[in-house]
Amino acid sequence: MDFRPSERSKTLTDRVRAFVSEHVVPVEERLMAARRATRSSPDWRTWSVPPEVRELQARARAEGLWNLFLPDPEHGAGLSNVEYAPVAEEMGRSFLAPEVFNCNAPDTGNMEVLHKYGSPEQQARWLGPLLRAEVRSVFLMTEPEVASSDATNLRATALVEGDEVVLNGRKWWTTGLGHPDAKVGIFLGVSDPNAHRHLRHSMVLVPLDAPGVRIERMLPVFGEYDEPYGHGEVVLEDVRLPASAVIGGPGMGFAIAQGRLGPGRIHHCMRCIGAAERALELLIRRSLSREAFGKPLASLGGNRERIADLRMAIDQARLLVLHAAWRLDELGPLGAISDVSAIKVVAPNVLERVVDEAIQIHGGLGLSDDVPLVALHAMARVLRLADGPDAVHRGVVARAELARYRT
Amino acid sequence: MDFRPSERSKTLTDRVRAFVSEHVVPVEERLMAARRATRSSPDWRTWSVPPEVRELQARARAEGLWNLFLPDPEHGAGLSNVEYAPVAEEMGRSFLAPEVFNCNAPDTGNMEVLHKYGSPEQQARWLGPLLRAEVRSVFLMTEPEVASSDATNLRATALVEGDEVVLNGRKWWTTGLGHPDAKVGIFLGVSDPNAHRHLRHSMVLVPLDAPGVRIERMLPVFGEYDEPYGHGEVVLEDVRLPASAVIGGPGMGFAIAQGRLGPGRIHHCMRCIGAAERALELLIRRSLSREAFGKPLASLGGNRERIADLRMAIDQARLLVLHAAWRLDELGPLGAISDVSAIKVVAPNVLERVVDEAIQIHGGLGLSDDVPLVALHAMARVLRLADGPDAVHRGVVARAELARYRT
Amino acid sequence: MDFRPSERSKTLTDRVRAFVSEHVVPVEERLMAARRATRSSPDWRTWSVPPEVRELQARARAEGLWNLFLPDPEHGAGLSNVEYAPVAEEMGRSFLAPEVFNCNAPDTGNMEVLHKYGSPEQQARWLGPLLRAEVRSVFLMTEPEVASSDATNLRATALVEGDEVVLNGRKWWTTGLGHPDAKVGIFLGVSDPNAHRHLRHSMVLVPLDAPGVRIERMLPVFGEYDEPYGHGEVVLEDVRLPASAVIGGPGMGFAIAQGRLGPGRIHHCMRCIGAAERALELLIRRSLSREAFGKPLASLGGNRERIADLRMAIDQARLLVLHAAWRLDELGPLGAISDVSAIKVVAPNVLERVVDEAIQIHGGLGLSDDVPLVALHAMARVLRLADGPDAVHRGVVARAELARYRT
Amino acid sequence: MDFRPSERSKTLTDRVRAFVSEHVVPVEERLMAARRATRSSPDWRTWSVPPEVRELQARARAEGLWNLFLPDPEHGAGLSNVEYAPVAEEMGRSFLAPEVFNCNAPDTGNMEVLHKYGSPEQQARWLGPLLRAEVRSVFLMTEPEVASSDATNLRATALVEGDEVVLNGRKWWTTGLGHPDAKVGIFLGVSDPNAHRHLRHSMVLVPLDAPGVRIERMLPVFGEYDEPYGHGEVVLEDVRLPASAVIGGPGMGFAIAQGRLGPGRIHHCMRCIGAAERALELLIRRSLSREAFGKPLASLGGNRERIADLRMAIDQARLLVLHAAWRLDELGPLGAISDVSAIKVVAPNVLERVVDEAIQIHGGLGLSDDVPLVALHAMARVLRLADGPDAVHRGVVARAELARYRT
Repeated sequence: MDFRPSERSKTLTDRVRAFVSEHVVPVEERLMAARRATRSSPDWRTWSVPPEVRELQARARAEGLWNLFLPDPEHGAGLSNVEYAPVAEEMGRSFLAPEVFNCNAPDTGNMEVLHKYGSPEQQARWLGPLLRAEVRSVFLMTEPEVASSDATNLRATALVEGDEVVLNGRKWWTTGLGHPDAKVGIFLGVSDPNAHRHLRHSMVLVPLDAPGVRIERMLPVFGEYDEPYGHGEVVLEDVRLPASAVIGGPGMGFAIAQGRLGPGRIHHCMRCIGAAERALELLIRRSLSREAFGKPLASLGGNRERIADLRMAIDQARLLVLHAAWRLDELGPLGAISDVSAIKVVAPNVLERVVDEAIQIHGGLGLSDDVPLVALHAMARVLRLADGPDAVHRGVVARAELARYRT
Repeated sequence: MDFRPSERSKTLTDRVRAFVSEHVVPVEERLMAARRATRSSPDWRTWSVPPEVRELQARARAEGLWNLFLPDPEHGAGLSNVEYAPVAEEMGRSFLAPEVFNCNAPDTGNMEVLHKYGSPEQQARWLGPLLRAEVRSVFLMTEPEVASSDATNLRATALVEGDEVVLNGRKWWTTGLGHPDAKVGIFLGVSDPNAHRHLRHSMVLVPLDAPGVRIERMLPVFGEYDEPYGHGEVVLEDVRLPASAVIGGPGMGFAIAQGRLGPGRIHHCMRCIGAAERALELLIRRSLSREAFGKPLASLGGNRERIADLRMAIDQARLLVLHAAWRLDELGPLGAISDVSAIKVVAPNVLERVVDEAIQIHGGLGLSDDVPLVALHAMARVLRLADGPDAVHRGVVARAELARYRT
Repeated sequence: MDFRPSERSKTLTDRVRAFVSEHVVPVEERLMAARRATRSSPDWRTWSVPPEVRELQARARAEGLWNLFLPDPEHGAGLSNVEYAPVAEEMGRSFLAPEVFNCNAPDTGNMEVLHKYGSPEQQARWLGPLLRAEVRSVFLMTEPEVASSDATNLRATALVEGDEVVLNGRKWWTTGLGHPDAKVGIFLGVSDPNAHRHLRHSMVLVPLDAPGVRIERMLPVFGEYDEPYGHGEVVLEDVRLPASAVIGGPGMGFAIAQGRLGPGRIHHCMRCIGAAERALELLIRRSLSREAFGKPLASLGGNRERIADLRMAIDQARLLVLHAAWRLDELGPLGAISDVSAIKVVAPNVLERVVDEAIQIHGGLGLSDDVPLVALHAMARVLRLADGPDAVHRGVVARAELARYRT
Repeated sequence: MDFRPSERSKTLTDRVRAFVSEHVVPVEERLMAARRATRSSPDWRTWSVPPEVRELQARARAEGLWNLFLPDPEHGAGLSNVEYAPVAEEMGRSFLAPEVFNCNAPDTGNMEVLHKYGSPEQQARWLGPLLRAEVRSVFLMTEPEVASSDATNLRATALVEGDEVVLNGRKWWTTGLGHPDAKVGIFLGVSDPNAHRHLRHSMVLVPLDAPGVRIERMLPVFGEYDEPYGHGEVVLEDVRLPASAVIGGPGMGFAIAQGRLGPGRIHHCMRCIGAAERALELLIRRSLSREAFGKPLASLGGNRERIADLRMAIDQARLLVLHAAWRLDELGPLGAISDVSAIKVVAPNVLERVVDEAIQIHGGLGLSDDVPLVALHAMARVLRLADGPDAVHRGVVARAELARYRT
């Protein structure tokens, strides 16, 4: 057993850390200050990408810090999950960083799907532009009418009719749908309701300007629209596409989803660890610099115990994520399904807890936009629901555990 | 021991409940839906009071549901704290309700201060208009530079020079400062830094259009500006007022603050209970109507246990608030100081916990503005800091508890 | 709403408090010290009642502090549940006290059953001696083979055959079965498995020396046999009794159990509050007298916050118990069923938490028998299971809560 | 990063697991059943070692499963800490196992001290017999009069007078003091109260039959004396020994203690993980085999969520322990001081939590001696205090964390 990261993992982690603190954080602070002066509009048609972000992307790409998430050594860095995890942690220290390095969700997951399951034609049309960050993509899964954490509930349809596939349905919480560069989505719909429940769904590549696609609104999260990404509600009405738009063929939706979620969740979780470290640093710096009753806050009441508890919680969560990444590398998505569910519960909850204590130590300041704690809280809180709520993932872990003792 | 409310308390509670559900909630839903269409601007100079609110105020006043918080039977309802508590709980079920019944903070506390300590001249100028809701008021206490939970840290000054008092300082989290009707503030500043620490401060009535008062910005809370109230940052620079603007005389600030905070906190806490009941109702209704894995959410996993735990937590918190109100009635603010600190910790934390579970049951919907859960979360989270963070109130409770055994 | 106890409740509470601290606690300490020298034997046939306990009983009875639990004014003190609750709390401050005042479980519940449902003949034979503490009684309900928290699982039978009733079954956790004065039990068994599930069971008075009753062993709880009471495992094999031994007639078992448990659980819960106060007092006294790192423990780390949290938890639990007692007085056992389940969860858990922190503050001493913390821990831990585990009572609370919103 | 254990670690882990389940567990069950029939006496002079234990030791030694804890390849297995950790975890699944493999505390720590710091003479006299399990040893540190978690509080003295060292003091919680083979102790006392606080103490080898050593009593833990080990209280009065009994020379006590505690604590913590796995297995087996309300307990209420949470907690704790072991191997005891404190908090608390839920699922059975849950609870609860209470270790973690940001 050896907890030392590989040489290339360590090198990339160090380089990303340096890049983030030197180049990304200062820009992020400027952009946030600018944003404070005006409120973003819910009208996504008015949104734009700050030019500074495009410049940072160009610089990152020039330095080779680009598509690091992709295990393919040709298009990406060729890192295993356990190697990429500490790199992703560093990206979690800034909200801008994932986009800067072309490692942000849902594009990463979509690129992986295209890379693994896309036809040459699909890859040519969409994977290249995504890898070069020329376009952005979305993932159309969650539906407002049903509890989408139970995939068998999904009502949207992707019916193959002759050489066409016809999409119908209402989707929401489609992250990135407001982005000016969002050009394509991966749509999950039922193709054959009578098939085995793992062979019922298809994934279809749908250009967002296809006739029948109607974006209705962006949904705020804790009042924020996360401009210029946004979380959209969209209706697809008789969207007709060539059957070649189906990824991997009809009925493959579930299988692809299984493969997609493992790495994607680990990236999210590792970024949670980085974000938690950032929140803890803010907490501690404030507790050392602020005084009340004649002492720094760090010396008052239970604050030290809290700091210790948070340190222990973060370290445990990080190790669990790394271990899950290693299991994913060793056993593949199906073999690590329970491990991935476990970190999906643990990491966002740890982040939320750290942020909550950090807000408390900051007092009123912590609630304002002068520090990034409210935004970190939203990140944590969303992740307790996105990609399946805590309860569903606890159910996966329990099922695996009980199976060990059933006879 | 008798847990039955008094007849007049019960009658007013029932009438307020009916008024809120018949008249206030529908308006609130309309206003929130309208607000979803546009984002509020941080520029408070553009804010206005919706005419529906003024109409509701007129109706409430006409029906005698007005100034119910005031124990004085002439200007208010003449209720004791324990009688008012269940009335306030009903108001907590709507964000608009406190304003509608002229029972919202910080006006209620300010009116009580003026009623108890104001000179006839001060009462004539400000108390009357406040009781009639013709003007709104603010309370200028918290300062950005210091941990204001330790009042001895406050740096703002209110120096008496001859027959004038001169105010200097920077205040923030001044709730209501953005309101178009906000005309007056109660300012807390140091008059004599060498006096006993309980005789150092003064409270001064400052018209908000006085020369030297400069509002710098409104602060968002979880991204919301709480328009048209707002939470402001304001600088007072050599604001010169007649010495008669000092309430109760120089050095009386601490004593008045002690008396002001007891009832005010109980109102907040009781509203938390009402808000928690609202959140629990939302949670349960959703858990009964939404299905996953072939069952209503209420029948899945630990959801019933959670509902039971929340019911027990709310009931305990309500009883603790009622008991503190009764102690305040029996023993006065100083005798009930530890009781009031205890509920200040318990009630917002219970509310936060209920809201968190309600969000979780609602899934993505819970994070949007389609349901009021994000707003309820902000209410709870703010109250864990406003009027003193949890840690300070725990310290008060512990001090009282340890004192029982010191020899 | 009035939190002041009635005059007679207050008077009896004060007298019991004084009696316990003057007479009971010193004896308890002597008995515990004596017990430290020898380990009790699991062989209950060797157990005896310390003569000091009989003397204390005589004194309590002479002073009129006797059978205070019984609402009947002739045989008891005629207190309502809300009046008795603070009296019971005082008894909770000593392990001996309930027995001393003839207010210990399960005798109290059994006496109530006999008083409410017993025939004149049953009352003459057993109620009188129990009221005079001449004999002790047990309650034979829980069975080792089945999850007894679900009463429909019970397998023991009480079949009426002509003018006889025949008992068969294995029972355990029969508290008091080892007591030298234990002479009678109330046995719960199925009389008619085909009847409605609330009309299936009967309660039967069984003399413990009846042929066919075989005590097999005493069960330790956290290693303690709770001598001279004990918790027994017993087999009843073809125990034939006259049919007049059935209380209230065949099929009445469930109805009687419902009525029996409400007050009994409130007594337990109120004693938990008293026990929690005792533990908190021990914690605080130790934290003030013991030093580490140059300060009393009370000034170290999060200890003050812990003390505050425990004070808030105890006060809330007490209020919930008092409120449940009041509801029981107002609405009867069925009307207060959810209230009683709520306190059955809350009170033992609060006690366990206080005791845990008290042990922690005491260090190694807290684990020894030199202080009563280990015994208090066992009391709390047992009560999270006895009379139904937490999960079952949470289920009752949830059912009532969900019913409010079902349509 | 690689989570795969080394080949020899894996092999030994597998062999120990097989040995424990085949040979140790059956004996343990027989011994526990026998013990149920009689209570152990507090009089340690009557205690004896069951012959089955000696037989198991002989077998383990013959199979080479002996002194595996010792990193020295000559006397032990030559395993690093991270290699030994999974082996120790397997030993944690049985109370007997550590003794069977000669890997039980405090002998392991004492042997390490002798191995690292002992003079050839000291090693010859004590290390050999300890390695062969011919004698047992104790560690005399904690004192009843002072909070011993702050070592500067210790009052016992070890004064060098000429060529003698004279010991005085009262010690308690001296584990193993009741063992019939306990022949020697390592005594921690102050030699020079005026020296730097890290140079003040000495460790002295004291034969337990030396004149002046007086064992006063054994202390029960949750009512158990842990026969034949026991936890003793002992007085040393003018115990005169040759100065050569001082280990490493006067003033070296603190330095040796630092080195001793790291590995020792990791062994404890790893055994906690094994014990927690045992408790979780018991919990799950019971939840699958026991029914209530028509379903196995595993399908009721929040039980699955609980199982998932416990699995996640155990896995995180294990990883944190393994990581601390790796840090200890890499950085030595001083470099890993905060890591070791962290696991000292985490592991026993996780064990306690798992055991608590396991008791709850077992109902009354869980409180009896028919299952080992009460004993596992005691193990966990003791370890939250032994070797320093949680609060002290949280303090260590917090200090390290704050130091990162101090300027």
